[in-house]
Amino acid sequence: MNIFIASIEDKVAVLTSEESWHCAKVLRKKAGEEINIIDGKGNFYRGILTSVSEKKCIAGITSGPEAQKKRGYQLHLAIAPTKQIDRIEWMIEKAIEIGVDEISFIQCKNSERVVIKPERIRKIVESAVKQSLQAYIPKVNELLPFKQLIETSKCDQNFIAHCFESEKQSVKKINFKGKSTLILIGPEGDFALEEVEYASKNKFNSLDLGDNRLRTETAGLYVCLAASILS
Amino acid sequence: MNIFIASIEDKVAVLTSEESWHCAKVLRKKAGEEINIIDGKGNFYRGILTSVSEKKCIAGITSGPEAQKKRGYQLHLAIAPTKQIDRIEWMIEKAIEIGVDEISFIQCKNSERVVIKPERIRKIVESAVKQSLQAYIPKVNELLPFKQLIETSKCDQNFIAHCFESEKQSVKKINFKGKSTLILIGPEGDFALEEVEYASKNKFNSLDLGDNRLRTETAGLYVCLAASILS
Repeated sequence: MNIFIASIEDKVAVLTSEESWHCAKVLRKKAGEEINIIDGKGNFYRGILTSVSEKKCIAGITSGPEAQKKRGYQLHLAIAPTKQIDRIEWMIEKAIEIGVDEISFIQCKNSERVVIKPERIRKIVESAVKQSLQAYIPKVNELLPFKQLIETSKCDQNFIAHCFESEKQSVKKINFKGKSTLILIGPEGDFALEEVEYASKNKFNSLDLGDNRLRTETAGLYVCLAASILS
Repeated sequence: MNIFIASIEDKVAVLTSEESWHCAKVLRKKAGEEINIIDGKGNFYRGILTSVSEKKCIAGITSGPEAQKKRGYQLHLAIAPTKQIDRIEWMIEKAIEIGVDEISFIQCKNSERVVIKPERIRKIVESAVKQSLQAYIPKVNELLPFKQLIETSKCDQNFIAHCFESEKQSVKKINFKGKSTLILIGPEGDFALEEVEYASKNKFNSLDLGDNRLRTETAGLYVCLAASILS
């Protein structure tokens, strides 16, 4: 089943330029054909193509909106990009399949990578949303300095996963239900001690992800799955 | 920290040929240096290299065995290999980081891939075990026909994840603690109905992995994480 992302107004769907190209050029759809549409804000539609060109496809809505079933929790994952960017890219694909509301990238003291390509990440996100038959496109933020992310969190509960010895809460014991949760995952060399202390001062709890040493991208996925399973 | 896989007998560790090559040629270790060793059966050791060559490195054990902390569950994951084998390969890496005891590959009616390279899989497994500081190397079985796997399961509880409508148990409700569990994950086109019926006849319960449509490899990882979090 093909799903296209469009902006919807007055029963008319205008596919994004990328989706129009895919619809017209790759799938060779013609006016009169029925398509599935999402608005990226949580709604599914069906529509009939009325105008097809590589730059702009338009469809008349025939049914919808049908809202995507809401998850019982809100998860904001903030992660330091890995040196090998493909590891983060697959993590994003999987995180979206499983369910995440917002993804941020953080620049830490031990970060080996300080550049991400937002356009490439956006494509991965949209593709994963469509693949997993969802209608809501998670927000993806650009790379932010560690402190800025800490200071601007508006979540109900905030956690930082690190390997330093300290009093930690097990991820298994987090109550995700009905709450917004921000979880920070550090770079390959872990957060710096001063970063952990700064987070702690700002009421971030230290998080324990179990006995095994997980790679950055595995840890990111682990918390997405934990939220899905524990809520 | 480097860890080497070796067979241990009478306080002497003989590194496998691959590990010997890595130790002597890549890391250029010399006799007299201390190394970390695992036996692949759940035990950590430390030892002093007494003989170093590209074909065979030998170390005298100075401490150990120290047993890897046991997980409170046993998980056997049986999965149909995906068309793009790299998707299964990363799943294996992640599954091992998180914890799995046995991995089988199943040949199903809708399988698009009917060949796997056991040698390549073995290397991925060993690398992930060492990366995540574990001492136990999970068993990896060769590709088996679907029915054979069903008939030979010796696990306490058995599940098959599929998309057909039926009475299903949510993965969130499985009691993994203290039990051995086999979970079957199908190919990209799902199991065939006759396969689901055959499994059902053989007392496999149908499994519900939630509302989102997950790719084969994401589903495989999902159940590994569920077992880790729910036990």
